Amino acid sequence: MQILLTVAYDGTNYAGWQRQENAIAVQQKLEEALSTLLKRKVSVQGASRTDAGVHAQGQMACFTAPDLRVPLDKLPMVLVGLLPLDISVIAAAIVPEEFNPRFDAKHKTYTYSIYNAPCPNPLFTRYSTFVPHYLDIDNMKKAAQLFIGRHDFASFCATGSSAKTTVREVYACSVEKQSNEMITLTITGNAFLYNMVRIIAGTLLYVGLGKISANDIPAIIASKDRKRAGKTMPPEGLVLLNIRY
Amino acid sequence: MQILLTVAYDGTNYAGWQRQENAIAVQQKLEEALSTLLKRKVSVQGASRTDAGVHAQGQMACFTAPDLRVPLDKLPMVLVGLLPLDISVIAAAIVPEEFNPRFDAKHKTYTYSIYNAPCPNPLFTRYSTFVPHYLDIDNMKKAAQLFIGRHDFASFCATGSSAKTTVREVYACSVEKQSNEMITLTITGNAFLYNMVRIIAGTLLYVGLGKISANDIPAIIASKDRKRAGKTMPPEGLVLLNIRY
Repeated sequence: MQILLTVAYDGTNYAGWQRQENAIAVQQKLEEALSTLLKRKVSVQGASRTDAGVHAQGQMACFTAPDLRVPLDKLPMVLVGLLPLDISVIAAAIVPEEFNPRFDAKHKTYTYSIYNAPCPNPLFTRYSTFVPHYLDIDNMKKAAQLFIGRHDFASFCATGSSAKTTVREVYACSVEKQSNEMITLTITGNAFLYNMVRIIAGTLLYVGLGKISANDIPAIIASKDRKRAGKTMPPEGLVLLNIRY
Repeated sequence: MQILLTVAYDGTNYAGWQRQENAIAVQQKLEEALSTLLKRKVSVQGASRTDAGVHAQGQMACFTAPDLRVPLDKLPMVLVGLLPLDISVIAAAIVPEEFNPRFDAKHKTYTYSIYNAPCPNPLFTRYSTFVPHYLDIDNMKKAAQLFIGRHDFASFCATGSSAKTTVREVYACSVEKQSNEMITLTITGNAFLYNMVRIIAGTLLYVGLGKISANDIPAIIASKDRKRAGKTMPPEGLVLLNIRY
């Protein structure tokens, strides 16, 4: 029996999703909780390898458990009891044995939030990046639309990526003001390259600052040149919102 | 020259606003930053003594500084540089010598947020209280209205309060759904008794749970009996939103 979990976490204190040597990852904490519950070693497979400091509201992760004795509707809260406060399981479902949470993902949605005010506000900066400068939101909105479609996103991929192809499809990309100070980019795609959302967010920031023109986005995409795009934004503003199958 | 600062803080790691022995308070951190800047001992007077773990977006605090050499518009960011990341100064203004941030306050607004979902979500529970049970929002909205007005709020005051009178005036009180999961009480008054907002939030929670009827609120107020009201909610859901003069 394969179980699919929806996992939410505050990534501030983790070295990312993926289990690794010499650093604490969210995957490790989830595997430890499941191993405690099932009294055996349990491995989970996650849908998305979020980086160090990146948050998730809807990470998806699978594990195989023919020996699960906890009713499925009680499983999330049982796991919450075994997990640290900054990781939570919010749903559990049975999926077919052949289901793969990573490769079967059809849509992934991320948000990137910028707190745009003269001074930082501690109630908001944990889940956003502080930018004190004037930002032209209308130009950012216009530029965001230009990322939609199937493109070679090589300009928006960190060096060192092992991806076979840099072609990805962006289904939706928009910038909205959530409040007077909070600006949020929401982007949905079939999959994302390494640091792609954070580089797109950095490029939209440069548009907001007037360093890049919205009209230049198609040429920056076409150039396949990482140096033409904006900076890689820091991790704290990024949230993996949900994954659809 | 007296300066009025607008101060925002994440109260999670503090023993409240007010300076005290054997625990770290927000006031102490602000006084330390100002003392570093002015190279002398500086005292600040705050408008509201927020409790341990309570947050603020708009705490107000005054200090006297004939020797201030920093331009007023640069002062917030200079202080941000001297403060820990969970405390920020977001505005500074000159006020008359006789101005008193506590006694001259006309309106104070607090919010209390409840994260209402089957499982906790680490991205929201830092600034809200997790309640997994069904809540009747319409009854909570109805009950909230009944707190408005000038009343003796003795039923909503923690024991041990040194207030001379328990009469306070509530100008506005409402419950709103911010999202599918987030329920926020917003309350504005001339002043609040010790734990008053957290006890009103707890009473509204009991209304949502069906433990108290909305229609009973006037009788609970009239009883002046703390035992008739709901529980004192935990501090993390409470935010001092703003103070008006």
